[in-house]
Amino acid sequence: MKRAVLALSGGMDSTSLLIHLLSRGYEVRAISFNYNQKHHIELDRAEENILYLLQMGYRIPWMTVDPRQAMSGLGSALTTPGKSVPEGHYEQENMIETVVPNRNAIFSSIIYAHALSWVNEVKEPVEICLGIHSGDHQIYPDCRPEFRDALAEAFRIGNWGSEYVSYYTPYLAGNKTTILQDCLVNCERLGLDFDLVMKNTNTSYNPDFAGRASGKSGADIERIEAFLNIGRKDPVEYQQPWEEVVEHAKSVLK
Amino acid sequence: MKRAVLALSGGMDSTSLLIHLLSRGYEVRAISFNYNQKHHIELDRAEENILYLLQMGYRIPWMTVDPRQAMSGLGSALTTPGKSVPEGHYEQENMIETVVPNRNAIFSSIIYAHALSWVNEVKEPVEICLGIHSGDHQIYPDCRPEFRDALAEAFRIGNWGSEYVSYYTPYLAGNKTTILQDCLVNCERLGLDFDLVMKNTNTSYNPDFAGRASGKSGADIERIEAFLNIGRKDPVEYQQPWEEVVEHAKSVLK
Repeated sequence: MKRAVLALSGGMDSTSLLIHLLSRGYEVRAISFNYNQKHHIELDRAEENILYLLQMGYRIPWMTVDPRQAMSGLGSALTTPGKSVPEGHYEQENMIETVVPNRNAIFSSIIYAHALSWVNEVKEPVEICLGIHSGDHQIYPDCRPEFRDALAEAFRIGNWGSEYVSYYTPYLAGNKTTILQDCLVNCERLGLDFDLVMKNTNTSYNPDFAGRASGKSGADIERIEAFLNIGRKDPVEYQQPWEEVVEHAKSVLK
Repeated sequence: MKRAVLALSGGMDSTSLLIHLLSRGYEVRAISFNYNQKHHIELDRAEENILYLLQMGYRIPWMTVDPRQAMSGLGSALTTPGKSVPEGHYEQENMIETVVPNRNAIFSSIIYAHALSWVNEVKEPVEICLGIHSGDHQIYPDCRPEFRDALAEAFRIGNWGSEYVSYYTPYLAGNKTTILQDCLVNCERLGLDFDLVMKNTNTSYNPDFAGRASGKSGADIERIEAFLNIGRKDPVEYQQPWEEVVEHAKSVLK
């Protein structure tokens, strides 16, 4: 039995990775983070998928870690009330404002602790699964592979039993388009409803109070581009009709 | 103006480091952690010293980070109700039970985030100060210098502005005896009461409900040894008279 601790943000990448792991027979434990993100609707979406998968016969122990107090006052636009999240494509300089200092290091160290605790329990290997991909690291330095490798090396040195923990990042060389393609294949293999799974995700950094995606944040644009690339309508709810969402995305991507 | 973010456990090492920084003119922000440690009395002691220092004219902004929920279920004797903390000297195998998986990586990543946030605020260098010393890393792999270096390298890679963050660990080559000697000198320099400062610390892993040290955990034994080495009575409260505490420690150290 392969075992994986999955960092489940509730976005399309980690959700696809969850399906990927199930289709490969992994026993999965999922960890999500509530860190005051304005797009915390992603946690509700993750829960909807966890419940859907339970209905379909897949039981995923799921923990939402709440480091809000630890990460208070760090000053990113993603988590600070009153600072607005910049719009536009991810290439732009102003996306730097959405960086939360050392966020992924904090999350990674907590995930690693729980993987190691599982190792201590079963005395067998546990993999840490991350939905990171090639599109991520252009903006956020803590999504870079060099960072991940350096962190993994530090955790290896700093813990007994670390020889039982490894990383599994199947999307590393991919992008949102190849991730959606992988999810389509795996949903079909497991008899899962791809559209429902994707409806139960959030990618937008600035959804409205009803949880509908703006279609305008950098993350939105990337997601819309990927759905256009696989030739399907994004089943997630947007604030505008799909045609307008596509039109806006195309104007930004030009 | 030099700036330091100090990891203040409320033990004798980090408390001595706080005095060390003040005597060198640093502007200090202190971070403590409440992680369900059975010896959480150390947080009250830290507060007592923060208040004492305020009285003496030194204002230390202080934050107690609470990652208890994030670190729940990790199974260490230090944090799990019903698991007793082993007694004896630190050299012994059973001390492994007191390891909390990846604890120092979690703490370090949070401290780093706050240091970086301070950098973003002032656009000037900030040092991260840790009271680690040569006695630590024999038992806990996440106290090893190789671990700290690897982690620092990962954080450097993973963050913008990381060139402004450095580490300051003046006790690294020392031990609890040299730390006490340093604290004595600095207290004298600043006109602080060394005995009061040390009374306001906790080193014991298993104090009683009144907060009195057992004198029997591995950490206790090291502390008592250090006070014997500098030829002073430890001003902290023990469950037994000082003479009995010393007698017990000597029998373990033989």
